[in-house]
Amino acid sequence: MEFDLFKLVRKEMELVEQSLYQHVNTSEQVLSEASTHLIKAGGKRIRPGFALLVARMYRDDIGYAIPLATALELVHMATLVHDDVIDNSEVRRGTGTVKRLWGNRVAIYAGNFVFARALDLIASYNRQDILEVVADASMKICQGEIEQMLSCFNVNLGLKNYLRRIERKTALLISLSCQVGAMLSTSNPKEIEALRRYGYDLGLAFQITDDILDFVADEATLGKPTGSDIRQGVITLPALYALHHDARRDELAQLLSSPQACQDNTQYIIDIVCESDGIEYAYSVSQHYAHRSKRHLAILPDTPVKETLLELADFILTRDY
Amino acid sequence: MEFDLFKLVRKEMELVEQSLYQHVNTSEQVLSEASTHLIKAGGKRIRPGFALLVARMYRDDIGYAIPLATALELVHMATLVHDDVIDNSEVRRGTGTVKRLWGNRVAIYAGNFVFARALDLIASYNRQDILEVVADASMKICQGEIEQMLSCFNVNLGLKNYLRRIERKTALLISLSCQVGAMLSTSNPKEIEALRRYGYDLGLAFQITDDILDFVADEATLGKPTGSDIRQGVITLPALYALHHDARRDELAQLLSSPQACQDNTQYIIDIVCESDGIEYAYSVSQHYAHRSKRHLAILPDTPVKETLLELADFILTRDY
Repeated sequence: MEFDLFKLVRKEMELVEQSLYQHVNTSEQVLSEASTHLIKAGGKRIRPGFALLVARMYRDDIGYAIPLATALELVHMATLVHDDVIDNSEVRRGTGTVKRLWGNRVAIYAGNFVFARALDLIASYNRQDILEVVADASMKICQGEIEQMLSCFNVNLGLKNYLRRIERKTALLISLSCQVGAMLSTSNPKEIEALRRYGYDLGLAFQITDDILDFVADEATLGKPTGSDIRQGVITLPALYALHHDARRDELAQLLSSPQACQDNTQYIIDIVCESDGIEYAYSVSQHYAHRSKRHLAILPDTPVKETLLELADFILTRDY
Repeated sequence: MEFDLFKLVRKEMELVEQSLYQHVNTSEQVLSEASTHLIKAGGKRIRPGFALLVARMYRDDIGYAIPLATALELVHMATLVHDDVIDNSEVRRGTGTVKRLWGNRVAIYAGNFVFARALDLIASYNRQDILEVVADASMKICQGEIEQMLSCFNVNLGLKNYLRRIERKTALLISLSCQVGAMLSTSNPKEIEALRRYGYDLGLAFQITDDILDFVADEATLGKPTGSDIRQGVITLPALYALHHDARRDELAQLLSSPQACQDNTQYIIDIVCESDGIEYAYSVSQHYAHRSKRHLAILPDTPVKETLLELADFILTRDY
């Protein structure tokens, strides 16, 4: 997702960037350094971007949304740094992970620390309803992470399990970003709900395209090797399709069930999946959710921000594979 | 600390126990099982006990404090389960850790999950001030954990570093329990502050006596082997005293600096510390804090609960070594 899709809130995005650095600063040097590294490692700040865009729908001055947008990115960072410990990841976005540079122990505490900081920022709003949806999303994300872990190398799980996994991996936090951006800015429950659903469906579409890219993009584009999911036993939608519809499905099931086979035959597995209609099928499902995300916006007045939110969905619809 | 010191709130302690089980129940079975194991592994529920006792100072019906007391124990459990991953601990309170039974990955997510559950419970009060002190304590606890990690096998750190470590390890959460128990029950800022300080000093005294027990108690009493701190390179007050005042301080410094020497010579190190005045010195420091904790209560009216809080401090003063 291109950063300039957030051009309507560019000034505020820069303030979020400053706010991130400011809020991980602490007297404990190692913690500050590890957390600062997490911020520097980048990312597209999609979650703050959505929260700010949604706020901009309702107000010109959206300074009030900066702490919330910062908190959303910190929650996201907390999940990433723990995931790197869990997955034993050495590299993320082309740079060494906190886990590799400081070790598992610092990575676990750094995750807890930035999450607590996020809470502190959310506390400043004195909004029970916002805290409740954040806590609820956090619990569901943990559940989804466990589910993903248990699903690895399991070829007997279907579409429902896949959708639940990507919901919790991506859709929930993007949905939350849109929802709380709206909750801070309007009291219209129908619009808040429409924006929550928009974020949810867009998040699903976004994760499905990401899962496709893991099969078809090159390493430079991904910032990590192609086929990472296969190697980790994460069975995504293209593979799921091939497992059910390809002539070589029995062979594929045998390969995907075995951690060793997934390591040794990654390219062969990718080839089977790409030669099935798995990519096309996954693409059509992502299109379905991207279209549906746009429809949720119908009840909102036509404004430049709404235009941008629609463009963000179009971006997924036209993403280059 | 004996459980019957919480006899004035026994009924509510049982409700907290039920509430704990109820709140870790989730559709993700592994997460429920691991979290339930954490609860079953026990502990004295000191933090809920303090929150409930403090609430009982002000009201007869303290049902309103049950979710808060539950949340405090969940926060404590979250720190324990992550600590077990960090310290690679196989046994806690005489039973296998989540880390050993389910692995590091489930342990990390279970910690995040119970913390998020705690948040959800705290959110129900709609009290910004309470959320702020919880978030603040959570951040400081992470900082202290990093500090403890960095301090391991370092014989050049002094009393100030030790006090900061035990503050964050124990005093902050006991202090928080007293403080938020009061914040829920009274609007008198002087009394809230007195109870916060009481918990803080009592927490320090309690941790110092725990650190003494690691030198002098037997394995059955501790629920883990004597000398665990030494083996992990955690230099506590008795050792700190010996490092500065014992005739064999140079030899001791050399031993305590080396992870291998700490493994191979645990009993010899314990002997040096016990033959110095380290235990007596640490005992006198814990007495200092226990006495100070009692003095904070002077401004509170004399009631059966105040009597119990004083007895809790006396319990530390007379703890059997």
